[in-house]
Amino acid sequence: MTGACIIGLDYGTESARGVLLEVDTGLQIASHTYPYRHGVMMRTTPGGKALPRGWALQNAPDYAEAAEAILSALGRGRDIAAIGLGFTASSPMPAKRDGTPLSVLHPDAPHAYVKLWKHGSAQPYADEINAKGGAFLDNFGGKLSGEWLVAKAAQMQAEAPDLWAETNRFIEAGDWLVWQLTGRETRSLAFAAFKAQYSDRYPEGLVPGLEERLRDPVKVGSSAGGLSKEWRKRTGITGRAIVAVAVIDSHVVLPAINVVSGGSFVGALGTSAAYMFLSDDFRPLPKGIEGVAWNGSVRDLWCYEAGQACFGDILAWFVRTFPKGDTSANSFAAYDAAVDGMQPGDSHLLAVDWWNGNRVPLADSNLSGMLFGMTLETTAVGIYRALMEALCFGAKSVLDLFEADGFAINRVVMTSGLATKNPVLIQMMADVMQRVIEVPQIDNATAVGAAIHGAVAGEIVPDYPEGARKFGAKAVTIFDPDPSRASAYGALYDQYQVLCRQAPIRQSLRELNSIPSPTKAGRPDGQEIKESVA
Amino acid sequence: MTGACIIGLDYGTESARGVLLEVDTGLQIASHTYPYRHGVMMRTTPGGKALPRGWALQNAPDYAEAAEAILSALGRGRDIAAIGLGFTASSPMPAKRDGTPLSVLHPDAPHAYVKLWKHGSAQPYADEINAKGGAFLDNFGGKLSGEWLVAKAAQMQAEAPDLWAETNRFIEAGDWLVWQLTGRETRSLAFAAFKAQYSDRYPEGLVPGLEERLRDPVKVGSSAGGLSKEWRKRTGITGRAIVAVAVIDSHVVLPAINVVSGGSFVGALGTSAAYMFLSDDFRPLPKGIEGVAWNGSVRDLWCYEAGQACFGDILAWFVRTFPKGDTSANSFAAYDAAVDGMQPGDSHLLAVDWWNGNRVPLADSNLSGMLFGMTLETTAVGIYRALMEALCFGAKSVLDLFEADGFAINRVVMTSGLATKNPVLIQMMADVMQRVIEVPQIDNATAVGAAIHGAVAGEIVPDYPEGARKFGAKAVTIFDPDPSRASAYGALYDQYQVLCRQAPIRQSLRELNSIPSPTKAGRPDGQEIKESVA
Repeated sequence: MTGACIIGLDYGTESARGVLLEVDTGLQIASHTYPYRHGVMMRTTPGGKALPRGWALQNAPDYAEAAEAILSALGRGRDIAAIGLGFTASSPMPAKRDGTPLSVLHPDAPHAYVKLWKHGSAQPYADEINAKGGAFLDNFGGKLSGEWLVAKAAQMQAEAPDLWAETNRFIEAGDWLVWQLTGRETRSLAFAAFKAQYSDRYPEGLVPGLEERLRDPVKVGSSAGGLSKEWRKRTGITGRAIVAVAVIDSHVVLPAINVVSGGSFVGALGTSAAYMFLSDDFRPLPKGIEGVAWNGSVRDLWCYEAGQACFGDILAWFVRTFPKGDTSANSFAAYDAAVDGMQPGDSHLLAVDWWNGNRVPLADSNLSGMLFGMTLETTAVGIYRALMEALCFGAKSVLDLFEADGFAINRVVMTSGLATKNPVLIQMMADVMQRVIEVPQIDNATAVGAAIHGAVAGEIVPDYPEGARKFGAKAVTIFDPDPSRASAYGALYDQYQVLCRQAPIRQSLRELNSIPSPTKAGRPDGQEIKESVA
Repeated sequence: MTGACIIGLDYGTESARGVLLEVDTGLQIASHTYPYRHGVMMRTTPGGKALPRGWALQNAPDYAEAAEAILSALGRGRDIAAIGLGFTASSPMPAKRDGTPLSVLHPDAPHAYVKLWKHGSAQPYADEINAKGGAFLDNFGGKLSGEWLVAKAAQMQAEAPDLWAETNRFIEAGDWLVWQLTGRETRSLAFAAFKAQYSDRYPEGLVPGLEERLRDPVKVGSSAGGLSKEWRKRTGITGRAIVAVAVIDSHVVLPAINVVSGGSFVGALGTSAAYMFLSDDFRPLPKGIEGVAWNGSVRDLWCYEAGQACFGDILAWFVRTFPKGDTSANSFAAYDAAVDGMQPGDSHLLAVDWWNGNRVPLADSNLSGMLFGMTLETTAVGIYRALMEALCFGAKSVLDLFEADGFAINRVVMTSGLATKNPVLIQMMADVMQRVIEVPQIDNATAVGAAIHGAVAGEIVPDYPEGARKFGAKAVTIFDPDPSRASAYGALYDQYQVLCRQAPIRQSLRELNSIPSPTKAGRPDGQEIKESVA
């Protein structure tokens, strides 16, 4: 029989995962994954109502169903001291005053559902707000993203005014789930700060009626209350079961990988790449960096955000388009092995990693990928290597923005899928940056990070560093930079920078993106949907 | 029994081909191909002496051996009225006053052999001459190519002065072969004008002793004399057997494809592409066009020359690098079929066709290929199509240079391998140029063109138009431009031009070309060889 435990929940795009950790030993005892019943809805509502292009919805009750399944599987009959959550963001939803999702009342109305982080059709509303500007955007590069709460609220208010009138709360799904679990409505500063531009208050006057549908937030690591009686009954959980306010899924991992102090630069390398830089001090946002907030990811620290719109996706694209084996895994293995036998500069190729546009520093989704230097001697492996190098150059260019602004970066940590699965890539990253790179070794890192937030909220540990020491990664793989490669990578990176900076090239890419074809008029964009409650 | 015949000889890079045509009917009766015994020597002399990188030699007696075999096969016992020759150029060789090749006397001396057109190591000597400049380069874009006779003479004079001292004639191999066949030394204006910058005289003072080793040339379509008694014996040929002065192989084709008048723009689309524009009038060379000469390809016409350094080679590279079938032919077929199902602009991709540098208008071999516009939706077929489009854009940019200078282009004709084998590409060319394109249908076109030069020299026909009518192509495939594609191709071509014109991009490509790798110091260039006669 184990002693008291904590649970971490990682609410991702397709499914939720939970992990159970023993408080005394800090060990992971069990994990459990549960997919969302309706997944990501991009074509129709559950009832079959068609969605326009660019939409991505979720069904809030699916989250509760997953929570019940996971908490029961991990916690039934156990003494659970605390629970923490990481959640995708911004994934806001309209709800009634008692927490009832509007989709339960209006199942055929697309605007009644959760607008998932990757719901893209609110961009025109962000553009409209950006055109006016405002001081509330100072910490976000002067620009609201169409993926953020404010844009999604504006879209609902404009396109479904009747539904908007029925909406008492416009709330992040992560906050909504915590509300369900505890029976108490709270908002997390994680979402409010990064996704709704809250500093000491929400920006005002952007969307008619938005402020009254929001609540003031509390900082991360705060308790939202204990698990409610009803949920104890549904899950069989006993003990204090303090539930922490939710955290953005990409940030919640930090304590699990021992990143809990200023000066740490973290890359989460997945299909795209997210970068976080923690700082004790505030400096105005370096030009091109996407956002910064206080107390929104680790308590008492500033967290600066940046990212590459496309990361592992580029390599997956190449392997899918030009396979070198009978399975995708074999193709990756063959390319990675061949790449490892080459040196920088061998191919004389250079790629620019804009396959999905550029986020930092240009924030331009109409850009696209480029490849330079092909000759009749160019090989498929050479191109694959150039793509890997481009990913590293993109990462270095983010890091350089911080350093150019005078931030001291004393640690570089890489995490997520590619960091643990592709040592060739991480060695290349170390060589390109000419920095030591740490890759912490821990299973279910995001869920463990969520559990540590729970442990802090439940005062099982006094602070994040102690939570990290107790429950975080116990092993780390170190990649030392190879100084013999510094010169070739330096020369390639110089040209990467030169080519990224050419405004006429970027203008050409935008023109290519909009070339009219005889068979279709450019790429279709998201369309508006007008609806009203029947 | 057939009546009097004419023979055309096409001396290519690897082999010679002959064709026999009956004078009365104009019909091709037979053809015969014979490979050079020593092929192209890039590694060693026939005796095994190693050659530096960048060298490409041939052995003059191989040409005579091929001539004997082909003329015997086609002409033995026949009444041969005339013989014409097309020959690679510039492929010069040192010879004694009686025509003996120096390689017969000094078989171990690399500089004693024919320097084939693609012998590349004379480039530094061209660079040296170009640095000084001179009016003789006005008709050649102000720049001597390292592939031309003057540079190759300079290399020999500098690197093998003793051999140079023994050299009485520095002569194009095509002229040397005509000399062998007739027993009379003549020079063709074809080689002299295009490859040795002869106008009313050779440029003076460039290479010590060069002028005294050259002879004054005669215009194309001139008789060099009848086949000698010795060669009649060796081949069994009877009749007048007037031998025409030789013509550059890429030009000699023109009468065979009915291109014998001013205003015609011809593309010879092979691994690279050569363009010829015939004009009744002279205008100073449009900027970027490579050369122009009078009476050197068709009599009484100016012939302007231009080209793309890489053409079919780019498509072959792609198919080799990313095969889509078990054989190269199947891959080509699969890609071509898939491309035909797309429309311009569908892929939003744009390539720049500099896989082997750029010849026109930049004359820069340190440039390399580029590809713009990749996204996660980009397909292999989309890239292949972009490469085909880039070849067409490169061709159009050549044509545009002439039109921008006020030349009236009233016909566009495409010939050689890709013109007859790839209708998808030629339709694309018609759509990109928005011009009717003619592809003449004739077997052994180059050899037939050579035969027509023989017919003119032997006065079997009064002029080239009559020669073309009698012996040239009888059928032509017409590709009409599709006006519905004009807009998309126009938009893509605009961006092609914008990107080609960016000097910072070109500088980056040059930098990439010279990036030092930890394992090797850039791409090796041709090395000098110093030698002296033992």
